[in-house]
Amino acid sequence: MKIAIDGMGGDHAPSEVVQGVVEAVKIYDDIEVYITGPEDKIKEELNKNNYSGDKIKIINANEVIGTNEHPVMALRRKKDSSIVKALNLVKSGECDAIISAGSTGAFLAGCTLIVGRIKGVERPALAPIMPGRNGSFMVIDSGANVDCKPNYLVQFANMGSIYYESVFNKKSPTVGLVNIGAEEEKGNELTKETHKLLKEEKHLNFIGNVEPREIPSGETDVLVCDGFVGNTVLKLYEGAALNLLGIIKDSIMSASFMPKMGAMLLKPVFKKLKVKFDYKEVGGAPFLGVDGICIKAHGSSDGKAFKNAIKQTRIFYSSDVIGKIKKEISENN
Amino acid sequence: MKIAIDGMGGDHAPSEVVQGVVEAVKIYDDIEVYITGPEDKIKEELNKNNYSGDKIKIINANEVIGTNEHPVMALRRKKDSSIVKALNLVKSGECDAIISAGSTGAFLAGCTLIVGRIKGVERPALAPIMPGRNGSFMVIDSGANVDCKPNYLVQFANMGSIYYESVFNKKSPTVGLVNIGAEEEKGNELTKETHKLLKEEKHLNFIGNVEPREIPSGETDVLVCDGFVGNTVLKLYEGAALNLLGIIKDSIMSASFMPKMGAMLLKPVFKKLKVKFDYKEVGGAPFLGVDGICIKAHGSSDGKAFKNAIKQTRIFYSSDVIGKIKKEISENN
Repeated sequence: MKIAIDGMGGDHAPSEVVQGVVEAVKIYDDIEVYITGPEDKIKEELNKNNYSGDKIKIINANEVIGTNEHPVMALRRKKDSSIVKALNLVKSGECDAIISAGSTGAFLAGCTLIVGRIKGVERPALAPIMPGRNGSFMVIDSGANVDCKPNYLVQFANMGSIYYESVFNKKSPTVGLVNIGAEEEKGNELTKETHKLLKEEKHLNFIGNVEPREIPSGETDVLVCDGFVGNTVLKLYEGAALNLLGIIKDSIMSASFMPKMGAMLLKPVFKKLKVKFDYKEVGGAPFLGVDGICIKAHGSSDGKAFKNAIKQTRIFYSSDVIGKIKKEISENN
Repeated sequence: MKIAIDGMGGDHAPSEVVQGVVEAVKIYDDIEVYITGPEDKIKEELNKNNYSGDKIKIINANEVIGTNEHPVMALRRKKDSSIVKALNLVKSGECDAIISAGSTGAFLAGCTLIVGRIKGVERPALAPIMPGRNGSFMVIDSGANVDCKPNYLVQFANMGSIYYESVFNKKSPTVGLVNIGAEEEKGNELTKETHKLLKEEKHLNFIGNVEPREIPSGETDVLVCDGFVGNTVLKLYEGAALNLLGIIKDSIMSASFMPKMGAMLLKPVFKKLKVKFDYKEVGGAPFLGVDGICIKAHGSSDGKAFKNAIKQTRIFYSSDVIGKIKKEISENN
């Protein structure tokens, strides 16, 4: 398969992008990667990584879209940006997938406007995978659609279930509706109506409402919500974990010798915890509902994260998630 | 002051309710407490606690509203329930405050329907206080109003700010709007419109949008959002903390001798952490916007939690929060 990667996207671009790509092409025989960005800079990085093979191509692009720019306007103005060039490679069919760690807004808008939606999909949705106590869970939508209608959420549920089943190889993943009460009649207008509709989706393993308290257990595979709630869940979860570890650290620092000693002995446990919460292990968040494999990598991705995003892209491709979504959506429209 | 307490509300009623009340009247000379519930049962509990003073009165009530009953219907049918009797004590002016650890739905509906809203308040809001890394923060609304309009949120901001300033004795507490982006133009229809309105509230210390990731730091005092988002924040925060501690525990259990030893030595640190996250220290969540002091205690409250809820009620009363809210609302209507 051929993968386009936004060479200038992310806090550590292009060096970590190139490093991750070089590592990936060494491991995976069946991929070619097109890196978009200033040719000289990308070349320099390839040299630093001692790469001289033919699995990596450079597509020259001299502009960059920043995270503070207006997404749609920036996409229109900066035709020579690394992200637009990478999106066009997917649109033209030259590449099968795009990965970017750049501006989320520009990426989502670009995927929708340039790559295009799958026919029948109301709204594509961002679907990151998060680490829970007993397993990983997906939150769909995590921020692409802040104001939603019930039928959008039903499509999120279907797309998320297909992705989870295909990529994690888990038959009939559980699908839950994020809601502030376990009972069917609880919630706001959106969740009450969505609950009714999801119950009718007999092919889904819909387990009902999931209260936010239960989310971190990781017992529900696919969590469905509007993008405002999803983004809140995502960011609060991250913030809560960071701050809790921070509070533990504060307490240890102000503690006496014995607890400090204890903390030293516990280091391997905390290290394992850090790995568990490390987004770099997971790859990126798929943007589901667009007619191409679009992976949003974390803004602070390093080489390892890019390598893992490429790994994830391969599974996404080989399991034909997009074909399955097309089939599901066309059968229901 | 006179406080009505729902003797049958909560998982450990009436024993823990009575125990907390007995402890409180021993400490605070200036209170009288009316406990509602079956006279014989409450009497029995008072005897167990060796109480024979005249600061505690029993108001006989033979029914209980369960957490699974429809709030409004249950309030109408069960006139002889401990919660309705307690609410009526506030409505009639016999008591200055009510505390209940019973059904949240019945409590909120009862406060609104029986005690009544403050004139001009669109929607009363639940405003619990949560522990953050650098201080406590309030989330208003935390579940009373799942579908909100921008002007409701502006009132939440004002009521929350008044309560925080008065009860925590902090001049001009910071007020933030929970939103999925720091920039003014980010968010959904509700937050975008609310942001504009909050900027006009010059008397508030409005610091703009607060991303969910920043909430657990505790750096913003009053966090404003609709009840669906607020309840999600509240419950996910609780769930994330519990699960993270669970993951640490899992890791320790499966670790070798040395980390286990380390965990032993770290016990005092984890104990401190548990205290920090202990809702029992905080009291209960004020329900702001109703014309009476209404405190919702946690369903699993024990004696200590009830004692602290009474302590909080005293400060609420003496700092004239309701008078200040009335003044604020009348000036803006």
